[in-house]
Amino acid sequence: MIPSSAAVGRSIPRLEAHAKVTGRAEYVHNLSVPGMLMAKVFRSTVAHGRIRSIDVSAARAMPGVFAVYTCEDIRRVIAEPYYGPAFHDQPILALDKVRYAGEPVAVVLASDPHVAEAAAQLITADYDELPAVYDEIEAMTSKAVVHEVLKPAGTFADLKHLKNKSGTNIALDFHLRRGDVDQAFAEADHVFEHTFRTQQVLHLPLEPFATVAIPGDDTLLLHSSTQSPSFVRIEIARLFGWPENKVRVKVPYLGGGFGAKVYIKSEALAAACAMLARRPVKFALTMEEQFYMITKHATTLRIKSGVTKEGRITARECEVWWNGGAYADIGPRVTQKSGFTAAGPYEIDHVRIDSYALYTNLPAAGALRGFGIPQLVWAYESHTDMIARELKIDPLAIRRKNLLREGRPQATGTLMHDAELDLVLERLATRMQWEKPFDHGSETKRRGRGIAIGFKASISPTTSMAIVNINADGSCNLYSSTVDMGQGSDTAMAQMVSEVTGIAVEKITVVHPDTDVTPYDMATLGSRSTFHMGHAVKNAAEDARDKLFALAREVGLSAETTPIPDVFKKKYGMQAGNIVGVGSFIPSYQSPDVNGQTENATPFWMIGATGAEVEVDTETGEFKVTRLVNLVDVGKAINPAIVETQISGATIMQLGFTLTECMNFDAGQVTNASLADYKIPGMRDVPLAMENEAVDAKQKNGPFGAKGVGESGTFGVSPAIANAIDDAVGVRLTSLPLTAEAVYRALRAKAGMPLAAD
Amino acid sequence: MIPSSAAVGRSIPRLEAHAKVTGRAEYVHNLSVPGMLMAKVFRSTVAHGRIRSIDVSAARAMPGVFAVYTCEDIRRVIAEPYYGPAFHDQPILALDKVRYAGEPVAVVLASDPHVAEAAAQLITADYDELPAVYDEIEAMTSKAVVHEVLKPAGTFADLKHLKNKSGTNIALDFHLRRGDVDQAFAEADHVFEHTFRTQQVLHLPLEPFATVAIPGDDTLLLHSSTQSPSFVRIEIARLFGWPENKVRVKVPYLGGGFGAKVYIKSEALAAACAMLARRPVKFALTMEEQFYMITKHATTLRIKSGVTKEGRITARECEVWWNGGAYADIGPRVTQKSGFTAAGPYEIDHVRIDSYALYTNLPAAGALRGFGIPQLVWAYESHTDMIARELKIDPLAIRRKNLLREGRPQATGTLMHDAELDLVLERLATRMQWEKPFDHGSETKRRGRGIAIGFKASISPTTSMAIVNINADGSCNLYSSTVDMGQGSDTAMAQMVSEVTGIAVEKITVVHPDTDVTPYDMATLGSRSTFHMGHAVKNAAEDARDKLFALAREVGLSAETTPIPDVFKKKYGMQAGNIVGVGSFIPSYQSPDVNGQTENATPFWMIGATGAEVEVDTETGEFKVTRLVNLVDVGKAINPAIVETQISGATIMQLGFTLTECMNFDAGQVTNASLADYKIPGMRDVPLAMENEAVDAKQKNGPFGAKGVGESGTFGVSPAIANAIDDAVGVRLTSLPLTAEAVYRALRAKAGMPLAAD
Repeated sequence: MIPSSAAVGRSIPRLEAHAKVTGRAEYVHNLSVPGMLMAKVFRSTVAHGRIRSIDVSAARAMPGVFAVYTCEDIRRVIAEPYYGPAFHDQPILALDKVRYAGEPVAVVLASDPHVAEAAAQLITADYDELPAVYDEIEAMTSKAVVHEVLKPAGTFADLKHLKNKSGTNIALDFHLRRGDVDQAFAEADHVFEHTFRTQQVLHLPLEPFATVAIPGDDTLLLHSSTQSPSFVRIEIARLFGWPENKVRVKVPYLGGGFGAKVYIKSEALAAACAMLARRPVKFALTMEEQFYMITKHATTLRIKSGVTKEGRITARECEVWWNGGAYADIGPRVTQKSGFTAAGPYEIDHVRIDSYALYTNLPAAGALRGFGIPQLVWAYESHTDMIARELKIDPLAIRRKNLLREGRPQATGTLMHDAELDLVLERLATRMQWEKPFDHGSETKRRGRGIAIGFKASISPTTSMAIVNINADGSCNLYSSTVDMGQGSDTAMAQMVSEVTGIAVEKITVVHPDTDVTPYDMATLGSRSTFHMGHAVKNAAEDARDKLFALAREVGLSAETTPIPDVFKKKYGMQAGNIVGVGSFIPSYQSPDVNGQTENATPFWMIGATGAEVEVDTETGEFKVTRLVNLVDVGKAINPAIVETQISGATIMQLGFTLTECMNFDAGQVTNASLADYKIPGMRDVPLAMENEAVDAKQKNGPFGAKGVGESGTFGVSPAIANAIDDAVGVRLTSLPLTAEAVYRALRAKAGMPLAAD
Repeated sequence: MIPSSAAVGRSIPRLEAHAKVTGRAEYVHNLSVPGMLMAKVFRSTVAHGRIRSIDVSAARAMPGVFAVYTCEDIRRVIAEPYYGPAFHDQPILALDKVRYAGEPVAVVLASDPHVAEAAAQLITADYDELPAVYDEIEAMTSKAVVHEVLKPAGTFADLKHLKNKSGTNIALDFHLRRGDVDQAFAEADHVFEHTFRTQQVLHLPLEPFATVAIPGDDTLLLHSSTQSPSFVRIEIARLFGWPENKVRVKVPYLGGGFGAKVYIKSEALAAACAMLARRPVKFALTMEEQFYMITKHATTLRIKSGVTKEGRITARECEVWWNGGAYADIGPRVTQKSGFTAAGPYEIDHVRIDSYALYTNLPAAGALRGFGIPQLVWAYESHTDMIARELKIDPLAIRRKNLLREGRPQATGTLMHDAELDLVLERLATRMQWEKPFDHGSETKRRGRGIAIGFKASISPTTSMAIVNINADGSCNLYSSTVDMGQGSDTAMAQMVSEVTGIAVEKITVVHPDTDVTPYDMATLGSRSTFHMGHAVKNAAEDARDKLFALAREVGLSAETTPIPDVFKKKYGMQAGNIVGVGSFIPSYQSPDVNGQTENATPFWMIGATGAEVEVDTETGEFKVTRLVNLVDVGKAINPAIVETQISGATIMQLGFTLTECMNFDAGQVTNASLADYKIPGMRDVPLAMENEAVDAKQKNGPFGAKGVGESGTFGVSPAIANAIDDAVGVRLTSLPLTAEAVYRALRAKAGMPLAAD
């Protein structure tokens, strides 16, 4: 009855593979329902201004236009039209003020999307422009204040200690204090201080954000391309003042998420339009509009280390300024959750971290694959190599000397467990043949190599629930609100159910998120699903299995040898009935105190390391990444083939952020809002020699020893390449992206030669 | 936290009332999905014949036609294209043979239903006609055999003792033997024998049967107007050879069911078309086509009683012939499940019942509000009055003398419990003022009155499951596969959840049946939901409540006084999580032995009684029902207002079958397949003086003391009216419907006068 399926650990094909290649997989972007209106928005042309007037008369008069709404109309159905996960700061449509160029100001509904689009272009608005602030450092002190009053949402218990900083652009500041940093600096043999910057970049999922909102009698059904259906339900219900269960959120497959679709995005606009129009409304972004929706935080990071002459880091001070754009989104949580790892995966006795979530007049920044970690690793692992170079210590050796080992305290005081930093580093060294001689190439084609390692805490506190339903014929349904956005979660979860119940994976249907159907899950983000939902799924499967065993015993059958259908037939007299198993999971966790100290900062650690080899043209600054070796600690891989694609995906994505991707702004206006001008990696940009390895090291508290892996591949890419460039040509780049132009300028500066254009 | 909601027993408005009156309630008939094809069938013009050829070429050539399929095409996706709940006897489209006039022979798919309709009219077929049989008595011995080979489905354990009667038209025969009937007849003071007949009638829900089948990759989604989503899932999966969970069946509201939509109807055709066409297919019947879908059994019932001179019934013999039409549908179960109550609600020591499910060349007969019981009560309560009249005993007195009392054995040997036959009869007597003098009117306008009482067992074995999900804000979702087809089950079930959990009814969302979502339920039929699903819902709600209490204790809160949202917030740090309660119910039951004997024939009994007053024009035979008093035993009414509408609905429906409704056939062809020619009751046909009373008598083993009530109102209507006519003018009608013409003919015959037309 429960044969060993040995499903966990097998590289079985994705359940949805056939549906995807045959074009049958469902996406909200393709969804059409009878009577549906298409929504198109009119956007602000100024970055900061008080709205004097909005003229929608020409748009309203256009034949085929069903309605045109401004935020005043929205208020007929939602009195307080502000939403957001951390702050209730984002208006559904601009109200009184606009805070970035591209902000939605009015919306047109029409059956024909081209009519809606054309009508939106007839809308005009007048603004009293206000001084704007775009830079995160300037935002700290600027007189240009983006939000006069701050409105924390109170959603997250661990953000509740926020002091209200109304009148400033600081949405949240996080502080960590450990040991006596000042004294340690005074006693250090060397003190190094560097500042690093990262640029604003985009998620750019192939399927832009889309919602179809269908009004019921006093209910709303949202088909949405969201990573967090449970949160959308709660937030939309809050906006309308309804109980949760009047809102139903359904999610089919997502054409990528990467954080662009977490918490709540334009669901609120679609929902409000549907309730005003009393018609189904589809709001689907174009590729261009993704540039005005959500971005990754640009950051400035100052890092200062006290080091012994042997290369032992004794003290570290980090200041991180997160450019959050006009609306907080989940930025404050990025600031706090990533903040406490800003000093890197090293054992340092004296640590001071100050991390600031800042409002500016740019499109909002949120979570993007890594939740701030790639920015931090970029800084601290560049810094590590700069110290090593100054002290003439090998980059591998300095890392070996300082690495956090099993059982040692991280900066929060949390003792490290099941974080295979040393194993990952050693596997990287082996793969890179680090301790063998390296060919640095010719004078004009210099070769270099670099390594980097980073880590990330998982998100907490957080809740996941699952239901496993065994049918009378021995097939099985899994109910989980985890969103399969390409990461393969459907397959991995089905494997876990199979492992517990012995039911073949192909007989397990994974029911897609539907808040009327699948139980609560915090969200699909932060590489949390395999661990957190994995536990819930395992618990639910075990509950179902136990009930099946009990049923077999009840009807006098051997639980070990009887096929499942026979158990049901004996009990119910026919093919009838189900067994419903329920599981939930909430990891143990302790909120950090005012000094950022806690004994239990995270249920598990993610580890990622990258080794890069580059070849640099010393005359032009052009370089290429000739080899990229990516190591991650995945605990036990549930499906090794899928883990492999997760590592590749993360690495290539981060390669884009490292080398080519950058949003350009002019007075707050994005000037390259198209894929013609904003370069994401293509196949030719992927190094031919790319190797991935999942370090298969059991996470003792993980389901089947597994942990999350979706982000780990991003961690080391940027600093490994910058370190390799330095190794090749002796110049240090401190800002992303790393371009040929920047290398060329640095080479010229190093040689004391002026630039032609200067 | 769990305040008493006192929801059970309150006449709160139906949850769906507003959605229905505003036209927002969803029905499959209104459903449209992109790319959908409409299916229209070409039907047999002969009642019994071997198919020589089918010519679909002209239909295929018609512009706009997507495809035309015959059963040979169906076999490309379903090798054995026969379906049915009790027998796998019904082909998806006629194969080799046609067995009734109106049987689907071919199907046309087109985007435009008018094109499909027009193309279907271009199809022709040639048949070698075979001798046909239409009458249920003739079917017993006819050489015209409808099915050469019988194919029992093996679905129901209690039909498994079937002996294969291949070569006959007997699908199933049921026999009950108790005591020594022959000796009792020999010893009786009087022996009476009468034969009664009922006609073929229709369910005629306002929403005809409809399915939209949407093919997935290797899955099927069916939106269907079915009363039994769980069964449809299993049966469609069986046809395709798939696991259950590859088929998803969703059911919104039904525009009435009454048994027309139980088990599986044309879902198989819609499913096969969708898989062949690889496009969504909608198959929705017209009002006319309902005449070819499913009917109520015409019956012949011979009843013979041995009676003492005091009116005590000592022995009874019943022979029942059920005219099942061309396909068994659920007829064999009607034969068996109703069979054992054919001797009526009387304590009779010696009983012999023989009940036959017969194939004929008419449209198939299935379950229609009462599952055969109205036909039986019609016979045995007419018979009761005929005996009383012969013995000059008052009709009330003879019933009082013979009624089954608490603890006494029914014909199966099962002891009666919680069957308030005597209370119902006494309340009827009181309401009718039976023991006061009655004004019999004038010579030409004679008045009369009659009573009748019947009973029905509930269906067993049978399984129901439910899930109750409490959300973090204290709202709640109930998952149940019970179909709300107008009977108000959503409201009643929500009241039960409210009663257990204390959550207000308006915060409870009842999730409609969706086999991917709502757990197994046998079906919504036979008045089973309030009792069976009610138990499952109560169990699930109690499980959820217990888990909520445990959660409160775990976080140190008082389960009694803390609002639900606070418990979740304390546990999860934010508005997060659910509590999932699971409940199931399967009543205890013992299958009857070969003599139809069992100690536990049913979990509960339904009781219905009607008193009628009529006024008859002795010159024309015209009569009207001037008063109708309906009494039912509902146990405890969960929602008295809804129970009241159930009694009215059942009574008026049965009034149609009693007075006006009759399918007319000519050589097996329905000749009145329209509502212009087939008269259902209108408001003017409802007696002005209609009174209903639910006897509120606790069913001890019922959820909150409740039992089912959807059918009970039908039981006594027909015989009460026939008895009243006899009381008025001294003529006895033994066939339904009761028409003015029949009364006129009987009056003329009684007077020895020839009929003008004879």
